[in-house]
Amino acid sequence: MRKVIFGGANSLDNYIARKDDAVDWIMWGDEAAAVMADYWKKFDTILMGRKTYEVAVGMSKGRGKSKSKGQGKAKRDPYPGMKSFVFSRTLKQSADDSIEIIADGAAGFVRKLKSEDGKDICLMGGGEFARTLFDADLIDEIGFNIHPVLLGSGIPLFHEMTQQINLELLECKAFKNGCVLVTYRVKH
Amino acid sequence: MRKVIFGGANSLDNYIARKDDAVDWIMWGDEAAAVMADYWKKFDTILMGRKTYEVAVGMSKGRGKSKSKGQGKAKRDPYPGMKSFVFSRTLKQSADDSIEIIADGAAGFVRKLKSEDGKDICLMGGGEFARTLFDADLIDEIGFNIHPVLLGSGIPLFHEMTQQINLELLECKAFKNGCVLVTYRVKH
Repeated sequence: MRKVIFGGANSLDNYIARKDDAVDWIMWGDEAAAVMADYWKKFDTILMGRKTYEVAVGMSKGRGKSKSKGQGKAKRDPYPGMKSFVFSRTLKQSADDSIEIIADGAAGFVRKLKSEDGKDICLMGGGEFARTLFDADLIDEIGFNIHPVLLGSGIPLFHEMTQQINLELLECKAFKNGCVLVTYRVKH
Repeated sequence: MRKVIFGGANSLDNYIARKDDAVDWIMWGDEAAAVMADYWKKFDTILMGRKTYEVAVGMSKGRGKSKSKGQGKAKRDPYPGMKSFVFSRTLKQSADDSIEIIADGAAGFVRKLKSEDGKDICLMGGGEFARTLFDADLIDEIGFNIHPVLLGSGIPLFHEMTQQINLELLECKAFKNGCVLVTYRVKH
């Protein structure tokens, strides 16, 4: 069965972005780039909540401005080459075949998706949609690049949940820049 | 100058205890015990907020029940052999010489304490008092044993702060039980 993997970068005080969605504090480097290159190979499918999608489209537009090719595409599909599902009751259906809006029944939809053939499934971004999938016990692995900073305020990675989730540490690696990459298996 | 070091155990989702103060999820083992034995040697002084003090006294009473010696002492002083300062506007002065209640001017008091002779100073427990000292730039190192669990709810380690705190990773060590010990220097 395909795994759902929830990952990203966070601050030591549990934020994934500043209150204005800014991620200027994220540190890039050779080590993170190598990890990310391997990470993306696992997936052919991306799941996002509405807010994460809108932030990703905004960042994609920013990238598009400095590129001559594919700018129109980047405006609607922040992850070209992947099948993306955006979970939202308010967004209208996308004109782009690679983006599908799912309005209802997120847990059932993801459960069915996991049973289909394909690579693993990447859960992007904020914790609100992740909470829905944690509560339905649909997340199989989590991985975070913990940054050496206390942002003090921002958008939380983990929100309150109705149940405790036990984890098994799979990997722990300190980068030269002080980031600590941790990956865990969710104990179902 | 003496350093103020803030440390403890936390869950991956930024909690130091369940909502009812329970820390039953904390994992003990040879590796943690060896680290703690070294850790305690650094200090002769402990700083606590009121809530942390009351929880520590409660736990100390629990330990006292199974011991024949020192039970009376343990009821008031959870850290025998150390000089403890409890920061509270509501607690009455302790009858015990080793516990002193500081009602006002926490930042100034700690600043003066750091300039005096002695070993390093251990800041215990919850994040509310830590926030006061972070905001006054009085914390020099932090260290946490990140447990492989999402508690889902509880008492946060890091609360909202008015400023960003930049950190330098000093150590990162994965234990056999899946805990990840991280220590950082605060960049002043």
